[in-house]
Amino acid sequence: MRQQLKELRQVMADRGVGLCLIPSPDYHASEYVGSFFKSRAYVSGFTGSAGTLVVKPDWAGLWTDGRYFLQAAQQLEGSGIELCKMGEKDVPTVEEYLIREMKSGLRLAFDGRVVSAGEWKRLKAAADKAGAELVTDCDLPGEIWADRPALSAEPVFELPAELVGESRAEKLARVREKVQAEGADALVMSSLADICWLTNLRGGDVACTPVVLSFLALTAEEALLFINPDTVSAEIRAGLEADGVSLRPYGGIYDYVRGLSAGKKLMMDLRRVNSLLLSSVPEGVEVLDRRDPTELMKAVKNPTEVRNMRAAHVKDGVAVTRLMRWLKREVGKTPMDEISVAEKLESLRREQEGYLMPSFEPIIGYGPHGAIVHYSATRESCAALEPRSLLLADTGGHYLEGTTDITRTFALGPLTDEEKRMFTLVLKGHLRLGAAKFRYGCTGLNLDYLAHSPLWDEGLDYNHGTGHGVGYILSVHEGPQGFRWKQLGDAPQVLEPGMITSDEPGFYLEGKFGVRHESLTVVAEAETNAYGRFLYLDWLTMVPFDLDAVVPELLNEDERRTLNAYHARVRETLLPLMPEEEREWLVQATRKV
Amino acid sequence: MRQQLKELRQVMADRGVGLCLIPSPDYHASEYVGSFFKSRAYVSGFTGSAGTLVVKPDWAGLWTDGRYFLQAAQQLEGSGIELCKMGEKDVPTVEEYLIREMKSGLRLAFDGRVVSAGEWKRLKAAADKAGAELVTDCDLPGEIWADRPALSAEPVFELPAELVGESRAEKLARVREKVQAEGADALVMSSLADICWLTNLRGGDVACTPVVLSFLALTAEEALLFINPDTVSAEIRAGLEADGVSLRPYGGIYDYVRGLSAGKKLMMDLRRVNSLLLSSVPEGVEVLDRRDPTELMKAVKNPTEVRNMRAAHVKDGVAVTRLMRWLKREVGKTPMDEISVAEKLESLRREQEGYLMPSFEPIIGYGPHGAIVHYSATRESCAALEPRSLLLADTGGHYLEGTTDITRTFALGPLTDEEKRMFTLVLKGHLRLGAAKFRYGCTGLNLDYLAHSPLWDEGLDYNHGTGHGVGYILSVHEGPQGFRWKQLGDAPQVLEPGMITSDEPGFYLEGKFGVRHESLTVVAEAETNAYGRFLYLDWLTMVPFDLDAVVPELLNEDERRTLNAYHARVRETLLPLMPEEEREWLVQATRKV
Repeated sequence: MRQQLKELRQVMADRGVGLCLIPSPDYHASEYVGSFFKSRAYVSGFTGSAGTLVVKPDWAGLWTDGRYFLQAAQQLEGSGIELCKMGEKDVPTVEEYLIREMKSGLRLAFDGRVVSAGEWKRLKAAADKAGAELVTDCDLPGEIWADRPALSAEPVFELPAELVGESRAEKLARVREKVQAEGADALVMSSLADICWLTNLRGGDVACTPVVLSFLALTAEEALLFINPDTVSAEIRAGLEADGVSLRPYGGIYDYVRGLSAGKKLMMDLRRVNSLLLSSVPEGVEVLDRRDPTELMKAVKNPTEVRNMRAAHVKDGVAVTRLMRWLKREVGKTPMDEISVAEKLESLRREQEGYLMPSFEPIIGYGPHGAIVHYSATRESCAALEPRSLLLADTGGHYLEGTTDITRTFALGPLTDEEKRMFTLVLKGHLRLGAAKFRYGCTGLNLDYLAHSPLWDEGLDYNHGTGHGVGYILSVHEGPQGFRWKQLGDAPQVLEPGMITSDEPGFYLEGKFGVRHESLTVVAEAETNAYGRFLYLDWLTMVPFDLDAVVPELLNEDERRTLNAYHARVRETLLPLMPEEEREWLVQATRKV
Repeated sequence: MRQQLKELRQVMADRGVGLCLIPSPDYHASEYVGSFFKSRAYVSGFTGSAGTLVVKPDWAGLWTDGRYFLQAAQQLEGSGIELCKMGEKDVPTVEEYLIREMKSGLRLAFDGRVVSAGEWKRLKAAADKAGAELVTDCDLPGEIWADRPALSAEPVFELPAELVGESRAEKLARVREKVQAEGADALVMSSLADICWLTNLRGGDVACTPVVLSFLALTAEEALLFINPDTVSAEIRAGLEADGVSLRPYGGIYDYVRGLSAGKKLMMDLRRVNSLLLSSVPEGVEVLDRRDPTELMKAVKNPTEVRNMRAAHVKDGVAVTRLMRWLKREVGKTPMDEISVAEKLESLRREQEGYLMPSFEPIIGYGPHGAIVHYSATRESCAALEPRSLLLADTGGHYLEGTTDITRTFALGPLTDEEKRMFTLVLKGHLRLGAAKFRYGCTGLNLDYLAHSPLWDEGLDYNHGTGHGVGYILSVHEGPQGFRWKQLGDAPQVLEPGMITSDEPGFYLEGKFGVRHESLTVVAEAETNAYGRFLYLDWLTMVPFDLDAVVPELLNEDERRTLNAYHARVRETLLPLMPEEEREWLVQATRKV
């Protein structure tokens, strides 16, 4: 059995804890977290980005989703922890399991800072009903974690106005209007991406996500940024103070909330703030559960951000297109594997001015690995590439001008008819959605069919959303808009000009290959006339699709026209930026079909 | 000033009424109503199907929607009644207007039986707030309406099992299950189409809608049908009683509701029951506002209904296709106008066995009249047809096997390029939607884009929904599903196999011409496999599209394939049923493009 699990159970015993919950998030419900927060990985040994560990004295289980079944099974082997496959029938959700386990006298322990206020409310209700007790002012894994990394304290930097297009003061004013409109006295924000958007600050506290560990409290009079002061230079601090933003210690947010006076109305997004924040709200303070007003504001990129995003995508286009050429020329001659391809692409991106870092862990899957939707190559799993079959490359970068997220699938040599056919069917859907023109008022729900239809026509499908919002030098995944055909929870978000969303249908054949085509699109204004206001999707991504894998006969005129127009634009845009000796190849790679 | 308006104001004065509301519906919130209920038309002179009259001592206004602006303006001329154009900016809704008018001491009068319970609740709340009084136990227009037609009392007939596929007893059992599941003791139904579906009865109390004026009350023990007993034959009454359905006088429903004992839970659809019913509910009886469970049941046609609907559409296809041939051959030779075309079509339908009646007032619009979405030709407006331009024909029929609703647009001779181009663009959308294959779980919201996209691509649009449900020998318009791109109110209805929905995009150029292509589709099962359960839309309507108006170059391969396959199926289906001498023409009319 795994040593860390033994030690945790010892601590549980000492505290009379019968049930311990260790989820993935940090104190901010982040999708990706810093190494300090990887308690679940430390105790269980499972390193995937999403998973929840539940420990009892006599049993332990790890919940994760389909992306990670394979990896988790391997990493949990011999650990004494059972893999609970989320979404499979007869497998309860973590919450259902916990609620079922609650009984009178049971003590359920978790760090109140890593569980959302919304989930805590549901668990609390169940515990009260069952006579169980929640112990939330503790960090049990922390107590056994000897060599735990320190809380990240990377220096904060500020994005200049010419990069973000709207000053911090203007943003603060807009948010204050919304808070006032909701009739709230104060807003407490916990989402790192939202705080960074609002303050125009960036940092390095989470891998691949240049955010800053912080909380923010906003009232009509003051703006308090709860942050590690050592990470803020005197100059940046002065700038903040000039805009009426004063600094407080990172951990001080809880006392701030405890200090709110009765009768006040506090606005918080309970999907995002942690449960310790909510339970710190004193009696007599009314909590207004509202989405952070910044969520929609930051999703609608302003003209400066859109212009810069385009520039970032041209730079990224040069790097990825050069990788494409290198791959197709060198495979079979130069030895290469999934990891060395990732390294090659990183080096090509580094050649681009203003490149900062990858926007997420590269997904480079060759052959069967391409069918694993969130595959991440390791030295052990890493496949050597041969001059045949398909290579799926889903990668992205942060630049000073913005963030990219692109998937291209490359033919490394001869393909089977099935590989070509599926490559082309997925491309049809990608092109149909990318060419959409629509009335203002449409949501992703209205347009998603375009991406699915070529597969649905054949009785085939893919098992992930068609598109997600993308942050501006922030998280590569952001809401509220997206492309999907099923409505989940809230009403779908109307597509606003300036929203940047991925277009990424795929197809995955287990044990054989995977195809995904992903480009980022920006919602742009077409005409407004007597019939209404019309918008369209404009491509940001500038990288050819591998025509060696396309079956032209499977494209109709409309799709062929869209593909040729896109390739003409890629050629026009990239040709002057490509090294002399690579231009002829690009002309060939973007030929008319 | 209009005499009827003067007389109404006299009655208002006698009763101390300061504000009088006269809406369109009957006691059942029907879309179309019998002549007894046309008080609004009697007082105002406006005969459209939708409109609301509001009368004050010193002012009167009639609210109607875009379909009727032209007609209402003409019919209200000199009446002293102002036309209030619904949907235009600065024009309040009727409800907003009434609420604004309410003040202490004002008496607002309307017949509580012709206003929905939902609307009454909102008006009541506003009246109480303002200190105004609602007078609802009155029928003021009735008091001045000397030669008012009697309440319709057409004989009731029963549809045999082989036509409806599910017995009354089975339907009653299914509905009782739902009522029980909601924890209700009784269900009171007011929707005529739903009561007819549940009882398998039909009648003739509303023009073009073979329903029976009735209410229904259902408990675990009894089923009470409130109906004019003179309209029910001894045989039908015996059949009803055999299924545990006993008759009560039509007007007895109110006393039934008043007689419910405290503690009972009463299920009613407040969108549909009238306000007198709701206000008759005694203290201590809890009202559960739920959609009638029959609404979804009747929308999902069973295999027998689908089979019969197909048969009805073949018969209707013969009639409309023969009209098409006659039109295109005779125009310019035989004098004809919009009304005589309607008469010709009616005579061709009557030749079909089992034909009952039109399913709505035919819309036959030539040239500019085609651009008036709900145009209804009158002797005065009626246009003579010439061998040029487009004729739009939106008509339908009730047969013993089902109900049809079809629109075809015919080229009567040479067309302008614009007429041909728009005819083809609308056809593209019609074909795209009709060819849809999709995962189970999709709603009309997911698919509507297909019908709009060819117009949206050109910055054009049409101003009505793309598709509505169709009843089975009931109302030609029924819910809950439909094709539209904007979500109104409730969450959109998932498309279930057996649902029958129209596919009817259009384009209207005021003063020039109108194009609409409408076919009915049924949701059918495709395959179910590892990727999911797949459904598709199958055509019911079997009438050619006029190829003389099509620009083949504007169709892509997919659309051409869909069109040719449809025409091949129409030819195959109708050829043996067409008169010898008309077959050659049909072969030509369904040629490959």
